[in-house]
Amino acid sequence: MELSVRVKTGDKIRLHDIDPGFRAGLDKEQAAESVAELGAKLGDLTNLLYAAGTHSLLVVLQGRDTSGKDGLIRRFLTYINAQSCRVASFKQPTSEELAHDYLWRIHAQAPARGSIALFNRSHYEDVLVVRVHGLVTTATCRQRFVQINAFEELMHRHGTVIVKLMLHISDDEQKERLLEREADPTKSWKLDIADWEERKRWPEYEKAYEEAMSHCSPAHAPWRIVPADRKWFRDLAALSALVEALEPHRDGWMKALEARGREQIRLLAEYRAKEGAGAGTK
Amino acid sequence: MELSVRVKTGDKIRLHDIDPGFRAGLDKEQAAESVAELGAKLGDLTNLLYAAGTHSLLVVLQGRDTSGKDGLIRRFLTYINAQSCRVASFKQPTSEELAHDYLWRIHAQAPARGSIALFNRSHYEDVLVVRVHGLVTTATCRQRFVQINAFEELMHRHGTVIVKLMLHISDDEQKERLLEREADPTKSWKLDIADWEERKRWPEYEKAYEEAMSHCSPAHAPWRIVPADRKWFRDLAALSALVEALEPHRDGWMKALEARGREQIRLLAEYRAKEGAGAGTK
Repeated sequence: MELSVRVKTGDKIRLHDIDPGFRAGLDKEQAAESVAELGAKLGDLTNLLYAAGTHSLLVVLQGRDTSGKDGLIRRFLTYINAQSCRVASFKQPTSEELAHDYLWRIHAQAPARGSIALFNRSHYEDVLVVRVHGLVTTATCRQRFVQINAFEELMHRHGTVIVKLMLHISDDEQKERLLEREADPTKSWKLDIADWEERKRWPEYEKAYEEAMSHCSPAHAPWRIVPADRKWFRDLAALSALVEALEPHRDGWMKALEARGREQIRLLAEYRAKEGAGAGTK
Repeated sequence: MELSVRVKTGDKIRLHDIDPGFRAGLDKEQAAESVAELGAKLGDLTNLLYAAGTHSLLVVLQGRDTSGKDGLIRRFLTYINAQSCRVASFKQPTSEELAHDYLWRIHAQAPARGSIALFNRSHYEDVLVVRVHGLVTTATCRQRFVQINAFEELMHRHGTVIVKLMLHISDDEQKERLLEREADPTKSWKLDIADWEERKRWPEYEKAYEEAMSHCSPAHAPWRIVPADRKWFRDLAALSALVEALEPHRDGWMKALEARGREQIRLLAEYRAKEGAGAGTK
């Protein structure tokens, strides 16, 4: 069963028709077991990715404020091979970043072979927030869709597995979470009056998201819309998407590692034979 | 009169038919005057580019060993606004660079608005040297042409003026320059046995160059083939290409600067008026 909505380029998406509270008939307890299983698999797969060194993983997280991007990253980090993983948060660009094309700062954070990058927001902000605020035209956004597709294809061909997750929460759930932040002194630092302002623009964001996802979902880098009103279901669906994207590489990585292992053993045997011979002639 | 051969995408180029010793009927003395004039213009234009801060300049230099890339860069640097200019030399990639897609290290060196990057070799090595040495297939190279075009278009749309110069020297001239290096203790550090090896492969390089230039010469980033057997003519043709590429922006930059100047004067007048008023009411 699909836990998230996988987009294909050209799909007409209506976020409004996708239930942010979807839970696939599961409850939290049932999910916990699957989450643990998937987490273990993810740990295993990312260890292989690191050791094999032939591929990399890029996870792109987008979603409105309070949709759970930080929470999901924390969840990922409990399972993922830590020494190969880097989190990159793309906030408002600095003046140095603005002086370059919008993909410059993104490309700089692309994961090297054997490693993982978790993007908290991304180049998609350059067709979302800037569009909603009228900083770029629709025509520019459409050019950017083409540029983004070219950029992601470049990474894909280099061996980067790309998983793009749009965390989808309802208006009510967002309101509740914003109010929670006010009430909780450990969370209130995250408060920003702008969040309430941005809330009003959600219908415009929705349209911008829909168009971006519909243009930028090739088979090798599809968007997935993750129902995120329930944090446990968000984690389950997101972990499932990552495992699904990595799993097809498992055999190849295993074979590469086994071949390398055999070669090391062969070299070691050679070395020992020489050492032995050397000792004999001393 | 065209001093270099401007390539258009789709052109069938035969380097063999382009005379590396071409000098447009000029002699060194006549050229010296034009070089000085063009140099002054270039200095002027790059000052404007720096001050206006709306565009950037990328100069890509390619050419076989001893074709004069270093010499031309030194020449440029005598004229160009120095505080806005950076030279990036792309040698054999490091292991960190190899772990990323081939455009990663190139993108990192892209010039910011208001600045200039001089590339000594470039992403074109990834469709030249690696191709000649059989490290990538022809099919991969053709994919890369598409990727390179997308990458350069991204920069172009960001306001980067792109000038790509292929320094074209003859086989005999190269041989002479390699032998000179041996004889000159101030140049012999540049010697590399590999240069002699690469010489043998020139016919293959020629083919690879021809195809790359023919695929990657859109109107906003055409290749120019610069006859380079004569250093003075190489400098003249290269300077001329840079000035030609920048000149169309002069008026726009002047207007932007004048507008900014007027605005500063207005603000200053306002400030003085307030100061005066403030002084009166003390």
